[in-house]
Amino acid sequence: MKRESGGKRIEAVMAEIRSRIAARGLVPGSRLPSVRAFARTMQVSPSTVVEAYERLAGEGLIRSRPGSGFYVSSPLAPLTLSEIGPKLDRAIDPLWVYRQSLEDAPELLKPGCGWLPASWMPEIAIRKALRAISRGEGRVLADYGTPLGLPQLRQLLSRRMGERGIAAAPDHIILTESGTQAIDLLCRFLIEPGDGVLVDDPCYFNFHALLRAHRANAIGVPMTPSGPDIEAFERAIDEHRPRLYITNSSIHNPTGATCSPVVAHRLLKVAERAGLTIIEDDIFADLEDEPAPRLAAFDGLERVVHIGSFSKTLSASVRCGFIAARPDWIEPLTDLKMATSIGGGRLSSELILLLLKDGSYRKHLDALRVRLSRAMDETAARLAPLGITPWIRPQAGMFVWCKLPDGVDAADIAQACLADNVVLAPGNAFSLSQTARGFMRFNVAQSDDRRIFRSLERALKNAARSLAC
Amino acid sequence: MKRESGGKRIEAVMAEIRSRIAARGLVPGSRLPSVRAFARTMQVSPSTVVEAYERLAGEGLIRSRPGSGFYVSSPLAPLTLSEIGPKLDRAIDPLWVYRQSLEDAPELLKPGCGWLPASWMPEIAIRKALRAISRGEGRVLADYGTPLGLPQLRQLLSRRMGERGIAAAPDHIILTESGTQAIDLLCRFLIEPGDGVLVDDPCYFNFHALLRAHRANAIGVPMTPSGPDIEAFERAIDEHRPRLYITNSSIHNPTGATCSPVVAHRLLKVAERAGLTIIEDDIFADLEDEPAPRLAAFDGLERVVHIGSFSKTLSASVRCGFIAARPDWIEPLTDLKMATSIGGGRLSSELILLLLKDGSYRKHLDALRVRLSRAMDETAARLAPLGITPWIRPQAGMFVWCKLPDGVDAADIAQACLADNVVLAPGNAFSLSQTARGFMRFNVAQSDDRRIFRSLERALKNAARSLAC
Repeated sequence: MKRESGGKRIEAVMAEIRSRIAARGLVPGSRLPSVRAFARTMQVSPSTVVEAYERLAGEGLIRSRPGSGFYVSSPLAPLTLSEIGPKLDRAIDPLWVYRQSLEDAPELLKPGCGWLPASWMPEIAIRKALRAISRGEGRVLADYGTPLGLPQLRQLLSRRMGERGIAAAPDHIILTESGTQAIDLLCRFLIEPGDGVLVDDPCYFNFHALLRAHRANAIGVPMTPSGPDIEAFERAIDEHRPRLYITNSSIHNPTGATCSPVVAHRLLKVAERAGLTIIEDDIFADLEDEPAPRLAAFDGLERVVHIGSFSKTLSASVRCGFIAARPDWIEPLTDLKMATSIGGGRLSSELILLLLKDGSYRKHLDALRVRLSRAMDETAARLAPLGITPWIRPQAGMFVWCKLPDGVDAADIAQACLADNVVLAPGNAFSLSQTARGFMRFNVAQSDDRRIFRSLERALKNAARSLAC
Repeated sequence: MKRESGGKRIEAVMAEIRSRIAARGLVPGSRLPSVRAFARTMQVSPSTVVEAYERLAGEGLIRSRPGSGFYVSSPLAPLTLSEIGPKLDRAIDPLWVYRQSLEDAPELLKPGCGWLPASWMPEIAIRKALRAISRGEGRVLADYGTPLGLPQLRQLLSRRMGERGIAAAPDHIILTESGTQAIDLLCRFLIEPGDGVLVDDPCYFNFHALLRAHRANAIGVPMTPSGPDIEAFERAIDEHRPRLYITNSSIHNPTGATCSPVVAHRLLKVAERAGLTIIEDDIFADLEDEPAPRLAAFDGLERVVHIGSFSKTLSASVRCGFIAARPDWIEPLTDLKMATSIGGGRLSSELILLLLKDGSYRKHLDALRVRLSRAMDETAARLAPLGITPWIRPQAGMFVWCKLPDGVDAADIAQACLADNVVLAPGNAFSLSQTARGFMRFNVAQSDDRRIFRSLERALKNAARSLAC
């Protein structure tokens, strides 16, 4: 390129960046190569790259972040993970909804949030476990945990997984800070920027944010009541050659779907052919009445990694997640965990262990399942008169994925209800393809307040009125 | 490249990879571009890339990890973060030493480890705080924390930083799971693969592993008793254009050095000129008798990010770290934290808050400083007859960085002592340039056992004998 004129060189650099963005070699939100590095790659001077980047920024294709470099811009995946606009626009920003739900704001009603109210958690048992630890060994109070995490808890997790047909020895289980950190660690281990990753469409919206943080190329596969659409799954594999698939095979978030054995079997066959790894995020497992067959059980942890946590079923305050993976991945994953976070807190693991051991967790789960099932029916009964109907009746869990009346946009409803301090979870927050605008996820454990339904009713009436216009 | 023959195309791909490795565009341990992506870049068929990669693997330049791709190999930074050989070789592998120190192995003596014995921590106060929480609010026991983390704890941290001259409003502080996670989050935010990052040489060895996990290009700057060698720092900036510098400006790990005001001032001037961000990892701050001036205090959190934790001074079991950063970084950092780990546990933050509020932490620190200072003198006195001499007498803290007798290799001594169940921390574990083979870091709080010194004496005698041969 050295014989070209300065202007031509700048244009060549701009063309190269444009084509990388077009080919998704550079995905929205990802950082452009550093000026120095790219000057070397293109065999031009750094000033040529600076000029090219500035022109592209002028065009709005990329954006500069002072002191940090240039990023591919996009209305969907802006500069940083979220971009916060004026307050009312936020109703449709999943990260904002999420953050709002996490704020200590007692005036808010949160049928859109993703966890149980604290009052549904086994408070008495947690208090008792805390007292037991306060009387226990000094090292538990002050020392680091072991690299893999508390051995007795890993033994217990191994046994519990065994009950679901998943053969994972205690030494093939790693404790983490949370389920999310478990998936993050696996992403670090398994993928690199630009890699394709399959997710369900719709799926837990934080998967989108997590994959954006890894600069991965998320690819959606439509969800059906019996698992991902297997034909679409195969097409996506042929087209994008993804490296990874992240899913909840049972009590899927947000739809409540459960993978049928037929679909599970086909998924695994396709994954094997394509060299695809599957992360089975099973954090809702303990809410099931009848354990559905797990991908990790069919597969024997060959290409499936199984993860879980206790945030949704025991306590989100006591942080503890886990990974069960093939034996040869345990050591590098542990090294990576130590390098990036040292690891799960000893206190949290000891607390979880106590709660699991003394039977109070099982008792809590038995009562919780009954309570959730009842709340599921009650919520559905309250939504029916509003014309909001469940997509399926989930076998278990806290979520019901609902279809709004025809023509109504869930984002509009969410925006209107936010003015009444009701935080909802509109469908497109979960949908990579933005094809779920007519859907809404309800957390049945957070929907026991008439004000929610009154607010919904008002918003729907207004929406119907403007539809009629 | 399309007109070339198949063999030429394969060679061209091989040459490109070789030159990227040589130019450190691909650093040891980093993954090669995927076959598909690189085929696109080079405008060749995927099979050409496969063949080229396989030939490079045959040469040993890269290695394949089944199901995961190809990686740049290197004896220093192998396939994964660590590579575990036969047991005795492990004495010189810092990650192995680290993991070993973390295992529950009561028979081990650990003068090489990086934390205080549990018995030095404020056990009674922690027990009391646990009991208080067991009687407290239900939401503390079961709910998620708020996105930034417990407001009252952030207020208190803000006040404590204020006492050291660091002006950080509570809203400009983010709680994390740990100090390590804080640095990891900042690396995710600030650097990308291939970026240069300055570290002290020697430095906390986990920085090496962390930067390897980020595929960053770590660059060492020699340490002096008054901070990093400022001329070498400037040269490294000119040569490598790094994006980031990670340091402990006070009670430096492993050397115990403290940055003098002159050096701090020059560092900041150079950093400003070069557009460099500095992470000031201040997890040992509370061990100081007289607070030394902090980079973050001079700089006003413009280009310095201040991080801390309580793992080294209160409890490593109760996980809690924090970041104080410039206001415009708080929101994207919080989004990134939520996407990748949700965030610090509420229980941990409440516990830390209670311990900080009731004065028991201050009392503990007062006693701890006296005890550490005494242990420092005692350890030095025990090492002196062995010819092991402190590089400096640190102003405070738990580490003393010592010079071994001339010609003795710390790795050999560590290896010999491991056979006596004594885990040491040989100098090169901390040194990027591997120039600290004659040094050893001692944790004075873990050195109160005669067996350690007997083992050292034997190992040194044997070493002297083989030197004499």
